[in-house]
Amino acid sequence: MDIVNFKSEMPAEETVRIPAGKLIDFTYQTFKRVGAPEADAKLIAESFIDSDLRGVYSHGIMRLPIYIHHCRKSGPGGINPRAAVRIVKEGLSFAHVDGDNGMGHLVSIRAMEIAMAKAEKTGMAFVSVYNSNHNGAEGYFAKLAADRGMIGFFVTVGGRNIIAPTGGLTPLLGNNPFAYAIPAKRHYPVVLDMACSVVARGWILLAIKNGLKVPDGWAVDRDGNPTNDAREAYDGLVLPFGGYKGYALTLIGCILGGVLSGAAIGKEVTDLYGDFDRDQNVGHFMWALDLKSILPPDDFMERMDSLIDELKASRLAEGIERIYVPGEKEFLVKEENERLGIPVTLGVLKELNSMGDMKISV
Amino acid sequence: MDIVNFKSEMPAEETVRIPAGKLIDFTYQTFKRVGAPEADAKLIAESFIDSDLRGVYSHGIMRLPIYIHHCRKSGPGGINPRAAVRIVKEGLSFAHVDGDNGMGHLVSIRAMEIAMAKAEKTGMAFVSVYNSNHNGAEGYFAKLAADRGMIGFFVTVGGRNIIAPTGGLTPLLGNNPFAYAIPAKRHYPVVLDMACSVVARGWILLAIKNGLKVPDGWAVDRDGNPTNDAREAYDGLVLPFGGYKGYALTLIGCILGGVLSGAAIGKEVTDLYGDFDRDQNVGHFMWALDLKSILPPDDFMERMDSLIDELKASRLAEGIERIYVPGEKEFLVKEENERLGIPVTLGVLKELNSMGDMKISV
Repeated sequence: MDIVNFKSEMPAEETVRIPAGKLIDFTYQTFKRVGAPEADAKLIAESFIDSDLRGVYSHGIMRLPIYIHHCRKSGPGGINPRAAVRIVKEGLSFAHVDGDNGMGHLVSIRAMEIAMAKAEKTGMAFVSVYNSNHNGAEGYFAKLAADRGMIGFFVTVGGRNIIAPTGGLTPLLGNNPFAYAIPAKRHYPVVLDMACSVVARGWILLAIKNGLKVPDGWAVDRDGNPTNDAREAYDGLVLPFGGYKGYALTLIGCILGGVLSGAAIGKEVTDLYGDFDRDQNVGHFMWALDLKSILPPDDFMERMDSLIDELKASRLAEGIERIYVPGEKEFLVKEENERLGIPVTLGVLKELNSMGDMKISV
Repeated sequence: MDIVNFKSEMPAEETVRIPAGKLIDFTYQTFKRVGAPEADAKLIAESFIDSDLRGVYSHGIMRLPIYIHHCRKSGPGGINPRAAVRIVKEGLSFAHVDGDNGMGHLVSIRAMEIAMAKAEKTGMAFVSVYNSNHNGAEGYFAKLAADRGMIGFFVTVGGRNIIAPTGGLTPLLGNNPFAYAIPAKRHYPVVLDMACSVVARGWILLAIKNGLKVPDGWAVDRDGNPTNDAREAYDGLVLPFGGYKGYALTLIGCILGGVLSGAAIGKEVTDLYGDFDRDQNVGHFMWALDLKSILPPDDFMERMDSLIDELKASRLAEGIERIYVPGEKEFLVKEENERLGIPVTLGVLKELNSMGDMKISV
């Protein structure tokens, strides 16, 4: 059994390349069919496929079936495809937002729009969200701010507890991924998008789906024993990155995203793939900071370019060809995938084509 | 040669316990003698010794001599003990602050006070600072917000480049420590205070001062070879925690603290212990978030307590006696050090007593 390839690389023999537009349209149509308004379905589809474009396959179209499964369900455990995201309380630099149990992607975009509009007036604003759902990759929402000359921060209470507090064996914390996005001028924006686990759990799911093992150091089983078995890893504990530092960071994510907003925390947190009878009540927290409050955005972005130039001019370690900044590899993969199409494994393709009467032709 | 003990533990045979009040007074008097106004000297002394109280000896009174050395110097490379911290630009939820080349501790406290005053009115505010200096441990400044029913975030461009971008060998980034502080009710506040290096470089300095080696995995020498020699580690590269994730986080610290504020970044960054001819121009970035904007602070703090209770009830791994939350160990050490006095190594004590005519009696 092979070990799953990490990030941006999928075993070539098992994939076909499909144009991004085709996948966006498939996703858009799929959400429309479960009742999402056109504008919402469009936003959801674009953010979904952006993950695939950037090589973060674990958070892209691979997950469509499970989301749609929730959207088709009515009552507790379902996702509301016609959600009316609304502000329940607001002030000059904050808003408390009820996601109306909508698709996490949609709720996150709407909430970040609120944060940016407020930040534009005051310099900085945060939005605290409850009653949302799993939202894919966080970098997309932080990057909305970078695209508008702002710095964006976004964190989510991850969709299942997989991390134990340091010294413990009970999974009480998610990997609570967070993202910063910062614009540059000549260079790509810097987009840090990381889970507090050693890897995003989506990669373990991908390993299961493709019958692969997971590398050393990713996970332990239920009793704390190291494992390479993807299923044991999935049922056990993913290790936090950097030991207790990763535990501390994921706890901060839980507090910002969940304690503040009133969303699910600790044992209330549900599993996107395992809970179909209670709402997810996922929490998000984000802030946007308007650069022009401090200095002209152009000056800021030139300072960013100089810094990135300086990093790239670093003396290189043996065997290294170039220095990357966070998010850069994903932008490079995106250019490739826009040109060649998005690689989709045959297993995922089969699953997509068995969702309903729509088919993706290859 | 022994290996340096990590965090909160110092080799017992080499230390004497000195009451915190005595060290605060010594620090206060020392700053007054170099010209600091009484109120400023008091704030500086309290934040200095708070590090020692919490067991973060690497950032406490051990560093007094080097700061005073800078304060006694006039012209470039000196620190201004009579700094007038001032706002150069402000809006509803932001301020751009000139530290007037003052003690980093003082500038950080003043800046956080500005952030909190603004956050109280709008919900959230940030302050961007340039022309400051090395400020000790960041948790203290974030905690000012927690003490006022707010969430505080603080990051500093660290006082010397020690980390190379992943794949590189040129130290272009500091360990850019950052802190979050969040209030609870029955429990201690959660205070995450971490460097992006595997350990704060102060611990390597402490190892040098006490003739100890550093553990595996802390550092590499100038050419990227692993080393246990404290001096080689000090002259080489400290490793970022969690590999490329630590590199990404320290880069974010550099951007928030330095690119935004106009403070020193990349090769402009100076070394507190090595540069005496140019100003440090250290940058800080912080935000404060007023909890009551979203929900009654009491409700928030009760939610915090429940979450902490839940973490502490985790099934324990073999050999573990209890679960800690970030900052808790430091609060426990603080209680002990308040009762028994702060352990100071004989080497540090000798250095303090040779600074001038004031002596610390034991």
